[in-house]
Amino acid sequence: MQQQVTLSIEQAQALGLEVLLGNGFNHEHATAITRSVVSAQRDECHSHGLYRLIGCVDTARLGGIDGNARPEVVDHAPSIVKVKANRGSSLSAFERGKPLLVEKANATGIAVLAITESFHFSALWQEVEALSDEGLVALAMTPTHPFVAPAGGTKALLGTNPFAFSWPRPGKAPYTFDFATSVIARGEIELHRRAGEAIPEGWALDAQGNPTTDPDTALKGAMLAFGGHKGSALSTMIELLAGPLIGDVLGHETAAAAESGEKRPYHGEFVVAISPRAFLGEAADEHLAHAETLFEEIAGQGARLPSQRRFAARQRSLADGVKIPRQLHEELKALIPNSRR
Amino acid sequence: MQQQVTLSIEQAQALGLEVLLGNGFNHEHATAITRSVVSAQRDECHSHGLYRLIGCVDTARLGGIDGNARPEVVDHAPSIVKVKANRGSSLSAFERGKPLLVEKANATGIAVLAITESFHFSALWQEVEALSDEGLVALAMTPTHPFVAPAGGTKALLGTNPFAFSWPRPGKAPYTFDFATSVIARGEIELHRRAGEAIPEGWALDAQGNPTTDPDTALKGAMLAFGGHKGSALSTMIELLAGPLIGDVLGHETAAAAESGEKRPYHGEFVVAISPRAFLGEAADEHLAHAETLFEEIAGQGARLPSQRRFAARQRSLADGVKIPRQLHEELKALIPNSRR
Repeated sequence: MQQQVTLSIEQAQALGLEVLLGNGFNHEHATAITRSVVSAQRDECHSHGLYRLIGCVDTARLGGIDGNARPEVVDHAPSIVKVKANRGSSLSAFERGKPLLVEKANATGIAVLAITESFHFSALWQEVEALSDEGLVALAMTPTHPFVAPAGGTKALLGTNPFAFSWPRPGKAPYTFDFATSVIARGEIELHRRAGEAIPEGWALDAQGNPTTDPDTALKGAMLAFGGHKGSALSTMIELLAGPLIGDVLGHETAAAAESGEKRPYHGEFVVAISPRAFLGEAADEHLAHAETLFEEIAGQGARLPSQRRFAARQRSLADGVKIPRQLHEELKALIPNSRR
Repeated sequence: MQQQVTLSIEQAQALGLEVLLGNGFNHEHATAITRSVVSAQRDECHSHGLYRLIGCVDTARLGGIDGNARPEVVDHAPSIVKVKANRGSSLSAFERGKPLLVEKANATGIAVLAITESFHFSALWQEVEALSDEGLVALAMTPTHPFVAPAGGTKALLGTNPFAFSWPRPGKAPYTFDFATSVIARGEIELHRRAGEAIPEGWALDAQGNPTTDPDTALKGAMLAFGGHKGSALSTMIELLAGPLIGDVLGHETAAAAESGEKRPYHGEFVVAISPRAFLGEAADEHLAHAETLFEEIAGQGARLPSQRRFAARQRSLADGVKIPRQLHEELKALIPNSRR
């Protein structure tokens, strides 16, 4: 078993800030990215946790994310906020745009935050929960690099395009889900490859478009969408809403920042905020309470609401701190320039 | 093979109007319902076609739909139109609310049409295509009676809750999808039952929550959501948005109109309209053209865009008329009172 280091939330935050500030990220970017990776670590979403700092630093060095970009907020229409991230992080773009999004949703009932030209690496539950914390219902979606074949197709074209939703539950953690529209996370195929295990049928195609259970072949071929043609359609919708609708690119036009720095990892994000109070006025409390009966019915059958494992981890981490592998801790500390230690 | 009768679109419309006007539906309801069932028949969506007129008449007799209801349109907020259907058809409620929805979406960027207390039996592609015909991007969702167990659960709780989306393609039929969030349409299980065939694993549970392949047992038990926990989460989102958010009920609180007329089949519908022109101004054409490259990539792989079969049927029907079984034609004619023949 790997040796673990325990950090308090404050220590994890300080570590993140030092790594980013010491590697050319300005204060706004460092704060937004640190908040994201520490929240993920707190919720034991390791795949979006502190280890992502290494990727941020690497990507910045390759010119794939501008840690000094200034997001530009435009009050575009009564229900549209646009934020041009200018090749900076989607996270600082979201934080800059959020206050106006909240204001507009409360004023008109529903509003969109359209982030463009952003570098995006984080989990969408963070954005939708930042909004449900404000009493709003929220949806978010973004394209990713192309890994998924459309239903009936043979080649990677669509991103793993995640879709997230959060519903406020007064006095409780929100009802939140956040899922990739691929049948499985790409990392799961990677884990099978490392373990030398076959992947289940229905996960992926080879480069010729035939089903495969070999993880290596799958990683060079295409993943499949969840739920067949339905998941594929949903993924296509995400490409359209978080792409052409907001004047940004399609998933297949992005690519991971290559060593040359020539490829464009930038793309859009589409966030919707809806105000129960704008819809229902004073009756909002009563109808939100009514929604609780659905959650009770679900839990009463022994089914789990989404995100419950994450919320339980959150409670543990807030009490006991976060655990990361000692090796990761050493790597992160080594990224801090001597001048800042 | 059953004998078929061919009707022109105009003959089908006249038949629908006569059936409904002759059975207590006012002109507004008869027109809206006829438009819906003839459109479905035209697109060879037989399950939502002319045979539904029989159900409408039966339901009205049982007090489950008020064919004289007056939908009330409320200009509720800059991006919210509410239509109280007052136990009438969702179709006339939609037609009454649509002009204001279109106006609001174009003015603010995104707007919601919240229909409440409606009797709903139609396919959602009709609503979203009515909006993409206006150059808008549209989403629609509605709960149904409870047939589906939440992922990890054992009992029917969620509706088959359909989700529809349409994207305008200038000069072409839109990109539209419309799917139930159950793994399969309920009618498919019914077809297997009639044919005496087992259903595939993964479609349904028995009354104790165990997997079943027996269609009879499945119809008395619970269907499953498509795509496991992801489809179940999406279905839950639909319950919340088209229910408590707009002040209406949850799927499990509705039930098919019973002979006693006591059960409540009424519920909500949540329709979102988004204006590409509000987002993009004069650049809208360029970005809509850019979206076409995604459709070309999908089709170029040999994958089919959703709804293509329906659009092909539409062309055939517009040229050659619609075909229905002679027996259905006789049944429908018999519903017209002698006084109107």
